[in-house]
Amino acid sequence: MSLLVTGSVGIDTVESPSGRVVDALGGSSVYFAYAASFFTHVRLVGVVGEDCPDGFLDALHANPRIDMSGLEIRAGSKTFRWHGRYQEDVNNRDTVSVELNVLGEAGPKIPPPFRDSRYVFLANTHPALQMALLEQLDAPALVVADTMDLWINGEREALMDLLGRIDALVLNDAEARQLTGLHNVVQAGIEVSRMVRRFVVIKKGEHGSLLFFGERVYPLPGYPSVKVVDPTGAGDCFAGAMMGCLADADQVNSSTLRKAIAYGTVVAGIELEGFSLDRLLTTGREEIDARLEELREIVRF
Amino acid sequence: MSLLVTGSVGIDTVESPSGRVVDALGGSSVYFAYAASFFTHVRLVGVVGEDCPDGFLDALHANPRIDMSGLEIRAGSKTFRWHGRYQEDVNNRDTVSVELNVLGEAGPKIPPPFRDSRYVFLANTHPALQMALLEQLDAPALVVADTMDLWINGEREALMDLLGRIDALVLNDAEARQLTGLHNVVQAGIEVSRMVRRFVVIKKGEHGSLLFFGERVYPLPGYPSVKVVDPTGAGDCFAGAMMGCLADADQVNSSTLRKAIAYGTVVAGIELEGFSLDRLLTTGREEIDARLEELREIVRF
Repeated sequence: MSLLVTGSVGIDTVESPSGRVVDALGGSSVYFAYAASFFTHVRLVGVVGEDCPDGFLDALHANPRIDMSGLEIRAGSKTFRWHGRYQEDVNNRDTVSVELNVLGEAGPKIPPPFRDSRYVFLANTHPALQMALLEQLDAPALVVADTMDLWINGEREALMDLLGRIDALVLNDAEARQLTGLHNVVQAGIEVSRMVRRFVVIKKGEHGSLLFFGERVYPLPGYPSVKVVDPTGAGDCFAGAMMGCLADADQVNSSTLRKAIAYGTVVAGIELEGFSLDRLLTTGREEIDARLEELREIVRF
Repeated sequence: MSLLVTGSVGIDTVESPSGRVVDALGGSSVYFAYAASFFTHVRLVGVVGEDCPDGFLDALHANPRIDMSGLEIRAGSKTFRWHGRYQEDVNNRDTVSVELNVLGEAGPKIPPPFRDSRYVFLANTHPALQMALLEQLDAPALVVADTMDLWINGEREALMDLLGRIDALVLNDAEARQLTGLHNVVQAGIEVSRMVRRFVVIKKGEHGSLLFFGERVYPLPGYPSVKVVDPTGAGDCFAGAMMGCLADADQVNSSTLRKAIAYGTVVAGIELEGFSLDRLLTTGREEIDARLEELREIVRF
């Protein structure tokens, strides 16, 4: 079933204890789309500036399951840039610099051929822009969004409007606490699940995730990663694999959701073993499925 | 198979956002023994002062599966006291006051009838005292210890001596990082498992645990607790249920260990729903087994 992602395409510089990459391909829609492509076809909607280097997006264009026709190259604008530095403990990172550039301008349009998309992921951006994108869609079957502390704290009204219109929210534990004022993450997730139509996923980084669906809570641990090179994009890969898996199944119930989240866990765990898309480019369904079986085996008792 | 625990018996005052208890029964061996008693008989070795109030230990004496004959009531000494205060986020607590009292004196002796114990848990205390207790045992089949930052940072040599003599260590994630200097908890666990003979369990509070056994890592999420009244003793209950389950099975392999850890997770999750032993006194194998099945169901995918 058709899957659409709207989100950022960025030029990332990342430093971590494992090394450094300069001007690498990044952005939420990029990680999402590549992760989703292991499961289904995915349509990408985003915008870059005319400074976007030749060949910068080759990895996406070369992937036959990613439809890049929704990428706008905006004349006179510059591409989003982000420079982050992970500390010795890679759970902590500092933002060295951010240049919003084109992300600070008008949002992209969803091309007419994409408006019939059934599965939709609105990656993190201003909730009013997420709403404007949502309103361009004909009749989506499942709309899931991501958000961040900036909008929770500063744009609550727009965010609450959006939440009332979407099926599910994916957010991290700190964000769930901010959104609800509740310290207990389980309580917070239950509260957030009352704000959306169908389900909530709280991501806890290395500690895994909690799914809130149908009055129940489903915890899953993270994949126990020995090698963490660069966690940038892991959350987007989690969401991409999850949504790709759901779109492929074209059913949203506790069974498909739990399997989708397990795939999200596994693909995120692979992605963080390299910088940028490095590991995504060298993995495939064989490795992903083997890891899924491994995860299933190690959480069993 | 016979199970022995050595550890503290304390008079606890605890404040949490849910309320307050004053001069309540606490201490590592108390929580451990009660949790273990759901699975097997358990022998308690500890020491209190002559100030220990009448009836203070009734809950233990009334439990036919806890052998209290190893409890020393030391004339002229005072019982260990601890006063803790949990913050609004109950993952954080402040120690208001500690009176070591009898715990600062010579350790207890293991009574001759207990020396044939096969399964042994050395709850947290000075590693030299843990070693002295270990040396009083005839031929234990499985010796597991707990420790804390105080000994990791201040008594490393004694601790390393102990680790070389025991089968397994149970510790929390911060302690595993301190012990190894490694930030990645999975790497840290692998490193710690090289210091002991058989396995390591890293406890991550609400985020569950990681078992390191036989070159593999087994993650398990925490039970998703909505109601957290007082986490004091949850770690000791985890260890108690785990060891009780292992002693009952009288086999230590990946299958029995994983089931034992799942039981530890479940009993810890029940215990923190009340102050002191309140919830342990009102639960039983029926509720515990139902929660184990629930945990098995919700982590499945």
